Parts: sequence; C-alpha cells; structure tokens
Amino acid sequence: MTTTDAPLGDLTGRRAQAIEDYRTLKAQGRVLDLTRGKPAPEQLDLAQDLLSLPAGRWTAADGTDCRNYGGLKGLPELREIFAPVFQVPAERLLAAGNSSLELMHDCVVHALLSKVPGAVRRWADETRVAFLCPVPGYDRHFALSERFGIDLVPVPMSDEGPDLEVVERLVADDPTIKGIWCVPKYSNPSGVSYSDQVVERLAAMPTAAPDFRILWDNAYAAHHLTDEEVEILDLLGACEAHGHADRALVFGSTSKITFAGAGVGFFGASQANVDWLLAKSGKRSIGPDKVNQLRHAQFLRDTDGVRTHMKAHRALLQPKFELVLDVLEQELGGTGLARWTTPKGGYFISLELVHGGASEVVRLASEAGTALTPAGATHPYGDDPHDATIRIAPSFPSLTDLRHAVTGLATCVRLVGYERQLSR
Amino acid sequence: MTTTDAPLGDLTGRRAQAIEDYRTLKAQGRVLDLTRGKPAPEQLDLAQDLLSLPAGRWTAADGTDCRNYGGLKGLPELREIFAPVFQVPAERLLAAGNSSLELMHDCVVHALLSKVPGAVRRWADETRVAFLCPVPGYDRHFALSERFGIDLVPVPMSDEGPDLEVVERLVADDPTIKGIWCVPKYSNPSGVSYSDQVVERLAAMPTAAPDFRILWDNAYAAHHLTDEEVEILDLLGACEAHGHADRALVFGSTSKITFAGAGVGFFGASQANVDWLLAKSGKRSIGPDKVNQLRHAQFLRDTDGVRTHMKAHRALLQPKFELVLDVLEQELGGTGLARWTTPKGGYFISLELVHGGASEVVRLASEAGTALTPAGATHPYGDDPHDATIRIAPSFPSLTDLRHAVTGLATCVRLVGYERQLSR
Repeated sequence: MTTTDAPLGDLTGRRAQAIEDYRTLKAQGRVLDLTRGKPAPEQLDLAQDLLSLPAGRWTAADGTDCRNYGGLKGLPELREIFAPVFQVPAERLLAAGNSSLELMHDCVVHALLSKVPGAVRRWADETRVAFLCPVPGYDRHFALSERFGIDLVPVPMSDEGPDLEVVERLVADDPTIKGIWCVPKYSNPSGVSYSDQVVERLAAMPTAAPDFRILWDNAYAAHHLTDEEVEILDLLGACEAHGHADRALVFGSTSKITFAGAGVGFFGASQANVDWLLAKSGKRSIGPDKVNQLRHAQFLRDTDGVRTHMKAHRALLQPKFELVLDVLEQELGGTGLARWTTPKGGYFISLELVHGGASEVVRLASEAGTALTPAGATHPYGDDPHDATIRIAPSFPSLTDLRHAVTGLATCVRLVGYERQLSR
Repeated sequence: MTTTDAPLGDLTGRRAQAIEDYRTLKAQGRVLDLTRGKPAPEQLDLAQDLLSLPAGRWTAADGTDCRNYGGLKGLPELREIFAPVFQVPAERLLAAGNSSLELMHDCVVHALLSKVPGAVRRWADETRVAFLCPVPGYDRHFALSERFGIDLVPVPMSDEGPDLEVVERLVADDPTIKGIWCVPKYSNPSGVSYSDQVVERLAAMPTAAPDFRILWDNAYAAHHLTDEEVEILDLLGACEAHGHADRALVFGSTSKITFAGAGVGFFGASQANVDWLLAKSGKRSIGPDKVNQLRHAQFLRDTDGVRTHMKAHRALLQPKFELVLDVLEQELGGTGLARWTTPKGGYFISLELVHGGASEVVRLASEAGTALTPAGATHPYGDDPHDATIRIAPSFPSLTDLRHAVTGLATCVRLVGYERQLSR
C-alpha cells in the first residue's frame, strides 16, 4: 500500500482548485464505467479461436462423444491442464459449468440441505451459520451468503492475508462459524496474496465446528501483472497434512482466462468432498457442457498453454494498472488524502480514503459520469465502518477512458478530502 | 396401448421354445444398452455445424458482446426462437445453462430456501412437502425430489394424462402437496400427450396449498415421430385465465434438438415467478453461456428452423420406433403376455407385462447382454406395484443392434410370462 504524505500548505486553495476541477470534469460529460472486473474486448480477442472450435472434432481423448450426455466430473484432459493451476490433483478436480460462483453457491446449498462430510447436522438445521469474511472482500461472496441467511463476520486483512490471530480465536470458540471466504492470490480487491504461513495456519487451526470449510476462490490463480509470478501454498495439501483434509473447497474458472461467462468452472477438494458434491450434483445434472470443455482443451493445449495465454493478458492489463497508479500518484501523491494498493496480479486496485467519505466520492464521480462499484461493496452488508474503501477495476476501459475516469475519481477524492479536513 | 390377445395352445411348449431362444440369445453374447434416452451419433451429426460456430461473430442482435459477463435472462434472439416451441412469451422465457433438469432442481432448491410467490413459508420450514407423480414417469424427477426429502405420491396415468379425479381430490384436501411433475407431451415413458381438458383442469383446479406448482417438463415439445404433430394446450395461458398465473413452471431444452449436454435449457413462467427465479439465480451466476446461445441462434435461425431440424431427427428415429413395434408385434403379438405403447413422439416405448415379473425380465436381459432401465425406475421409490413396466429407449442403438436387443427382450418376456402362467 502506497502511503501519501501529510498535506502541506493552503487547504482552502486546494479545495478551490478541486471544486474548479470537478466543474470541468462535469462539463466534459463523459460517461464511463469502472464498476466491475470485466475483461476488455482486446482480452477476449485473445481467445477468438474458441469461436470456431472444436471444429471437426467431438471425441475426447478417451473416446467419449462430447456431444452426448454424461461425464459428470468433466473432461479428463481439461482437468489435467488445470490441475497444476489450481493445485488440485486432476482426479479430484471437477470441470463443471460456466462459472465458479455457481459452484460456490451450490456447495453452500448442498451443505444447507444435506450434511457435508464431518457435519453433525445439515446447516439448514443449525440455529446459526456464520462465515468469516476477510475485508475488504468480494461482494458476490457476501451476496450469495446473505441470501441464505448466513451471518457474515468481517475479519481484517493484513499484507499477508486475513488476520490469523482474529480468525483462530473466532473459529476455536464458536461452532456456528462454518466457513471463511478467501481469495488467496491477488485478492479482490486488495491484491494481497496469502503468505505460506497464513495458508499453513488456516490449514492447521483447530475449529469448534467439525464441518468448518475454507471456501478458496482462487479466481486469479494465473493472473499475474509482473515478472514476480506469485505462488501460494497448496491449501489442499496443507489441510491433508494437518489432518483436516475435508476443510478445503477450491474453486477456479477460466472466466478471466478465455471468455467471461462462456468459460469453464472448476471445483477441487478431498475425495470425500468430491464424492459428496458429485452425489448431490448428480441429481441436478447429467453432466456439464463437454463440447465447451473440449474446445478449451484444444485451444489451451496444456498447462504451459495457459501460462503463455496469460502473458498475453498481462501485456494488455499491465499498462492499464500502471496508468491508474501513475494518475493516482500524480493527482493524490503527497496530499495525505489516500492510500492505494500496487497489486502484482488480479483485477483491482483498492483505494483507501484517509478521511473517509467514500460514498460521497462515488456519488460525485457518478454525477460526473463515472460509475464506480458502490462504496461499502467490499464489506459484508455494505458496511465499511470507515467509509474508506473504493475498488478500482481498470481492466475494461481503454487507456484514454481510464485516464479520464481515474483523474476524475482523484478530483472527487480531493474535493471530499479537503472539504473534510476543513470542516474538522 | 396395443393389447395382445389371450394365449392359446400349449403353454409348456411355448415355455420350452422360450428357454431354447434364451439359451441362443445368451450364446450370442452381444452387449447392448437400451437404458437411457440418448440421441444416436447420427442425430448429433445433424447439428455438426455448431462445432464451428459462431465462427467470426460474437455480438448479439442488441450489440451485447457474448464473450463477456452478464445477461442473466439469456440471449433475446434465442428466447424469441423458442418462445413458440415452449408456449411462453419470449420476455418471460429465460435461456439458461446446458440442461433443463438443473433448472427444475434449482426451482425446488430456491422454493425450499426462500418463499415462492404465494407461499406462506419456505418449503424447508414446512412439516411435509409432497409432489404428485403421474406414473409411469421420469426417474430423474423422482431422484431430484427424493434427495430433498420431498414425498412422492404416485397418480395413475390415462391415455389423456394424469387421472384428474385423483389429482383434484388430493390437491384440494392436502396443503402439503406442493407440486406435480408433468411431461405433458409424448410423456416419458408412456408417450401420452395431455388432452386439452386435462391441461384446463390442471390450470383450474382449486388447491389447498396457495403455493402449488405444476412442474411442466416439456422435454419433447418438438419431438414428433408421425405426421400428426401433437399440440398441447398452453398451460401458462390456461393458468392465467383461471386466475392461477403463478402455478405453472415451464421447462424445456435443446438437449434432444442439438447436443445432449451441450445445448441450452429454458425456463418460462409468470412474471412473478420469473422475477423470483432471477433474484435467486442472480446470486448464483453473472449470466449463462451466451456464446453457446449465440451459436444455437445462428444454427437454428428461427422457429421454423427448429421444425425443419426436428424433421431430420424424425427421419432417423421413426424407423427405430417402427422396428421395435414390429419386433414386439412379431414376438409378443397374440401371446397375451404384454401390452405396449405406440407413441407419436418422444423417446420411449413403454412395455407392460400382463403377469408382472419386470425385474426378472430386466435381470435375464442383462445376463444375456442387454442393459435395460431398471424395473421400477418409472415409479417413485422404484416401487412399481405390479412390477409390470419396462421402458424401452430405442434412439441410441443402430437398427441391427436394436432388432437384436428387442428380440432378446421379447424372449425374456416370453420366458418369464409363460413360467408365471404355468406356476399359477
């Protein structure tokens, strides 16, 4: 996190300049969207070959006709390709539908309606079910949980992952805490990657709930932005080593590798968890879209193919992230108004306002034409206690649009920040 | 249902012949599979163009980039194509994932975990939830319901659909009866299409449960086998007309139109039900695979394109159904041992054994190499009270294999039937 210095000089003058800049911004009347982590069209173009694959082929390596029913576990050759990416042995990695979010949702649903391995009762019959949520975090995790009445308990994040002192204390004491949401690599939105020690402790810690689960959303497993390609510890292996094999549920997808929404979701876990999910999902489906899986296997070819492909993404994304960081430094550096992250991968930059007022900044930016993720979205129940966090999603806009949007955002931060400093 | 005459002549001799025929069958040692309603490879070849579509295109008619996130309702142009097929206005027809079974499953899940429109409480909080199951019926409907502890109540089928006297009495008295599973056209496995009067009465009948639902699995909506293309009454319209707009949940898919498992599932209902499902599924998914939907829209072009395509399926399927009916007539006609259906569409022929013994027939056929759907699978809990129904799925095998398998099946029917007649 880059920290800016304390402000110097004439606050009133700075505020006047911010007001003037905001007026100009509004007059320009440009409409832009920084709300979601969507790939840009140029990124999607990288997988353009998928649009005419699998061409003349329809049989899998094992002779399966991918055009017909069956194959609940997904195409073996695609599971082989992604096993190293998600750190799950191929035989326990399932290739499923078009999203990992739906796999997370369905795991929660099945846990509510049938006992997970190790559970005393199904979660629907518990008096309370709570999940820990490292904050800032991913709003769709929160929404999915809230929808089922699962209580969300925020846990602070450090530069190495969730604060394990807090996590260990909570899970040791409270059997109603059944899970923790984690985006372990290039976390949404902080960009933090969990240290080996954090992963070890998550795997090792005693939990009051016998059916505690780590929901490991490894959404950015291969999504590097620098030459330092961060590797995290293998959670599944660590959980096994610590005698908690059933604790880890690993999720991933190709949504930000190939096509967003037309890719493939993956699930990996212990054999008991995999058998449990297969037994449940076997009542729901005769099998996933194997043609799309074959298409992906043909296109990506092997694990190295995934790496090569992700380098092409990086080439498109890195300049956008650098631009945002440059603009933030230029516009807010030394103002003492904000801190921001410098992620080594993933899809987001997290901007933290020293004096709060994130909701007001988002509102002002919106009135000037730039849509941002709602303030508070990074916290359970939309409740950011300091009203401080703004998530910036640089991937979708062009460089020109991005410069305009982030400059405008910085203007709003200055406007609100100086106002707040003056009114203290 | 073709009824055979009572048997004449020497039973002992007939049995001896059956024993001899069975011995020959076993000696041939051919392994065949008549278990599931799977399309044959030649049928899948009809949609071969899908394997290289959408080629250079990725934008929907409204300009949406199908390669990116969003569009929870599905691609408008595909919903337009299938609106007449499933008798649902396009604006209330959702195009979803790769199966309709999963949509049925998810509707049940969401009804268990959140109130459906009109419900007093969510189904998980009811002391009992029961579904009516016209029998013979579809085993995956039963399995999906059983998995959630939903009680299954069998209801007899007539040539016009479920026995409405029974249905009306049960639903009028018992508020725990929350639904009925229906395959209204070319039903699985009886081939029955519901008469207009049956559909009207289903739509009109008073129900003790305010949140009663008809789960209308229109799986064979376009799957004709004769020139008489059966049309059923529009359930959704009928329910609206009778003031029960929220009663109907309509499901369908292209599984047996394009590719089985790589097609598109559809859901149609009242606006309240559609809004309810969208609100729930919006927590599960950012949207379906729009590229596959675009591929389908390009390939099928329009509703007439679907009709034309289904004629090509019929050309491949009709000879198989005719072959089965010929063999049954030749081998069992006049024996008094069995009755069978002569479906005008769909995927199955239902064979009913006059003297029971379906399990034994299936076992003998299996020992001779021909796998059949387990006896009882057509009934909830696998409980066919007369052990009489055998489902024949003629679509997948070649004509040669089919002749062998059905001749063998008939041999087993004769063997068991004469045995039973003699031991009475």
